[in-house]
Amino acid sequence: MDFRGAHIISVNQFERDDVERVFEVADTMEPYAHRERITKALDGAILGNMFFEPSTRTRVSFGCAFNLLGGHVRETTDVKSSSISKGESLYDTARVISGYSDVIVMRHPQVGSVAEFAKASRVPVINGGDGPNEHPSQALLDLYTIRKELVSNERPIDGMHIAMVGDLKHGRTVHSLSQLLLLYKDIQFTLISPNELKMPTDIVGKLREAGHTVVETDDMEAGLSDNDTVYLTRIQEERFTSKLEADIYRGRFRLNQAIYTRNCQPNTVIMHPLPRDSRKDANELDNDLNQHPNLAIFRQTDNGVLVRMALFALILDVADKVEQTGSKVGWYTESRFE
Amino acid sequence: MDFRGAHIISVNQFERDDVERVFEVADTMEPYAHRERITKALDGAILGNMFFEPSTRTRVSFGCAFNLLGGHVRETTDVKSSSISKGESLYDTARVISGYSDVIVMRHPQVGSVAEFAKASRVPVINGGDGPNEHPSQALLDLYTIRKELVSNERPIDGMHIAMVGDLKHGRTVHSLSQLLLLYKDIQFTLISPNELKMPTDIVGKLREAGHTVVETDDMEAGLSDNDTVYLTRIQEERFTSKLEADIYRGRFRLNQAIYTRNCQPNTVIMHPLPRDSRKDANELDNDLNQHPNLAIFRQTDNGVLVRMALFALILDVADKVEQTGSKVGWYTESRFE
Amino acid sequence: MDFRGAHIISVNQFERDDVERVFEVADTMEPYAHRERITKALDGAILGNMFFEPSTRTRVSFGCAFNLLGGHVRETTDVKSSSISKGESLYDTARVISGYSDVIVMRHPQVGSVAEFAKASRVPVINGGDGPNEHPSQALLDLYTIRKELVSNERPIDGMHIAMVGDLKHGRTVHSLSQLLLLYKDIQFTLISPNELKMPTDIVGKLREAGHTVVETDDMEAGLSDNDTVYLTRIQEERFTSKLEADIYRGRFRLNQAIYTRNCQPNTVIMHPLPRDSRKDANELDNDLNQHPNLAIFRQTDNGVLVRMALFALILDVADKVEQTGSKVGWYTESRFE
Repeated sequence: MDFRGAHIISVNQFERDDVERVFEVADTMEPYAHRERITKALDGAILGNMFFEPSTRTRVSFGCAFNLLGGHVRETTDVKSSSISKGESLYDTARVISGYSDVIVMRHPQVGSVAEFAKASRVPVINGGDGPNEHPSQALLDLYTIRKELVSNERPIDGMHIAMVGDLKHGRTVHSLSQLLLLYKDIQFTLISPNELKMPTDIVGKLREAGHTVVETDDMEAGLSDNDTVYLTRIQEERFTSKLEADIYRGRFRLNQAIYTRNCQPNTVIMHPLPRDSRKDANELDNDLNQHPNLAIFRQTDNGVLVRMALFALILDVADKVEQTGSKVGWYTESRFE
Repeated sequence: MDFRGAHIISVNQFERDDVERVFEVADTMEPYAHRERITKALDGAILGNMFFEPSTRTRVSFGCAFNLLGGHVRETTDVKSSSISKGESLYDTARVISGYSDVIVMRHPQVGSVAEFAKASRVPVINGGDGPNEHPSQALLDLYTIRKELVSNERPIDGMHIAMVGDLKHGRTVHSLSQLLLLYKDIQFTLISPNELKMPTDIVGKLREAGHTVVETDDMEAGLSDNDTVYLTRIQEERFTSKLEADIYRGRFRLNQAIYTRNCQPNTVIMHPLPRDSRKDANELDNDLNQHPNLAIFRQTDNGVLVRMALFALILDVADKVEQTGSKVGWYTESRFE
Repeated sequence: MDFRGAHIISVNQFERDDVERVFEVADTMEPYAHRERITKALDGAILGNMFFEPSTRTRVSFGCAFNLLGGHVRETTDVKSSSISKGESLYDTARVISGYSDVIVMRHPQVGSVAEFAKASRVPVINGGDGPNEHPSQALLDLYTIRKELVSNERPIDGMHIAMVGDLKHGRTVHSLSQLLLLYKDIQFTLISPNELKMPTDIVGKLREAGHTVVETDDMEAGLSDNDTVYLTRIQEERFTSKLEADIYRGRFRLNQAIYTRNCQPNTVIMHPLPRDSRKDANELDNDLNQHPNLAIFRQTDNGVLVRMALFALILDVADKVEQTGSKVGWYTESRFE
């Protein structure tokens, strides 16, 4: 695809080459994201960061990525403070707001809203999440993280083994990541979830059609063995339709130090889209793994900045101006990125 | 008036020369607002964008205008998060906040609040709307749009024909625009509204005193003919005092393609302050005119950025530094401004 | 202490030398804060301004200070829009957010939260207020103001006389200021409060141990005489445990022109942490002193910008780059700082 001036709405719009182009550019952003250098590539440009649904993490990550490229950020965070609540159409909002910004990131609770907005927008729009539907920069940062983590284990994405754990029925991140992995070869998926919360059959079907191996199980410990990556997601109790089902599976889909050591290979990378619920009875990823070197969850969010910088740089066609307008950081920084 | 360091509180403070000075400077902002060039004229300056009442459009427009001139924006959007709710006086708020910013834009639900704030402020204040009272930059952008649109029809503001349609009793924008038009000559006003929602008699009186022609009618189709501009505003059902009155006028003050073609001259410009209610039973401006070349509603909001840049440039006296500190845009843009 | 890369969590972490270093650097910030010059010392740096509790004044002051040093500001103002409400730990929030920013200011309603956050953060954190506990930049700006005001009266901090008035039991600002004054010598404290709302005995004890003189009284007029500075705080009616007590003291702890003239020395400086309640029955500081030359309350908030610039400059080690990257302001400013 031609990234210049393009909307980024769905993972479905990418070919493998596109994904790899994003990753290559993301790699070049490292000295800027890691505060060794600053750049003025987007000096004077304005990001319209439109969040019609709360999200600190994604909002700040996009805003930070734009600032790191030298641009300004104008933000809207409250749907109630917006004209949409007075009956304004997405068409009108898009026509107006796109007169204010050079690129827009939009999050909106309604499926399809960002695509509709993009159609009327006069500037490129990046989907920052349209309800349960799409959040393409999250899928890209997940895959970018896998690629980076596996490189240090001298493994490529093609042929890797990945376990996905938790609520695979509703989890937007595992759906989008699976979609992106259709572009790769010979992957072994182990899908670990309660019977009620299995990966949708159409996604499983597509994975198999693409030549991947898919194993489905509700036995977490069995499923964890023999993986390059374990990708965890949260199971919310209220997702079960019956109390009985919830009781059967209670506590059986959380990962902690003991379960990891007992079942995983020493190199298995641990991922999670965050936020994780760190309250005592949460079913996901325990704090006793916080110091584990294979815990990649904070490298994931760090990578999010690189991937978002890459998207902005490609869409606004400044990937080759970043270094050219760059200089050394002038303030005191300690190395804080792994 | 001397714009340097001045507060912009009301349309009443302008002479015709002042208005035309704003428009001349707004014209020079076009290459910057349209992303052909960037400027550093306000490099290092800080706008305090204080919105004690929600408004995405106006807030982002001012913020964007300041960014386009090279300045920083610090924003407050939530009255509940402010000390005003703890009994702080506008005097105290103004003394404090004016120590943080170089210029302040303030919106506040209370009539007169911005003028009171400005009195205590140590920096220039622009009224971004004080309840139903004043919103001078809206009136300026409306008139600036009329001027620009008529120029392409080779018509000046003096002598033009304008229809104002809808709730002329409560509409802040039509009141302020009328006020500004007192500075011009020989205009023909056709005021189209339900009897209950007519333009206040003191405004009609002033228009006539200024030598303008004023016709009032509740028959929209008759009133639409023979106009350079039609300025629509919304009628909210709850403004009628009786259900009977509401029923009489239901659906009689909306403009759509058929009514436009049937009644308007081919050059008639369509304006609306936005947001418009695009829900099915809204009484204002239908979506079937969205592609019409005379629909100026999105050019209006685009012009808002030019006019606000002009106000900042005049108040902070950098109108002649914009080009001097300017340079070409470094990123990929497609022409998106009409 | 070594300021480079340090967290600023509590006034307890400072030696007298540290405090004076902050003040020296704050002095050098004056031409920048007062808009005579601009600087690019933090060009490209990002402040994460994280307010999990509302505060317009402190939030904008920090953001403005960072902008004045040339940096970008990314802001979070709403706890409800944050992952914390979904059970995310401060550890996770800190790991993530510290990947986005070069320095973080955090306000949070919970005592100790900012210290806990700082432990997990990968970048320096400044406590912008953790509930009733600490707000070190407020204490520093209070003491900086005292120092500056007394200099014009040719008096040093050592040996000064200060009255603190109001709710000394719950007042975070008077606790922190007292703590800082432990680093100085021979101060005479007159602590004026209702019996129910006296300064905690451990603080009084520490002041006496440090060699200071402490007088406690519930008679405001008597206590006001013979002071270099009077520091007022608000008494909220609901702080009294009995209606009787509230009635006894009603109206006895407010300062106005008459009481000032009757009791204070002509040079006595009037301070207040703001916001003050300007409603009629508020017990604090009347508006009839607004024009009094000794009223330092707005100089306090102005000084807050200087002190916060100094903290950023010291933590990020750019104090000596401010002038080097500085230049003259390019826009029209009127002198507005006293």
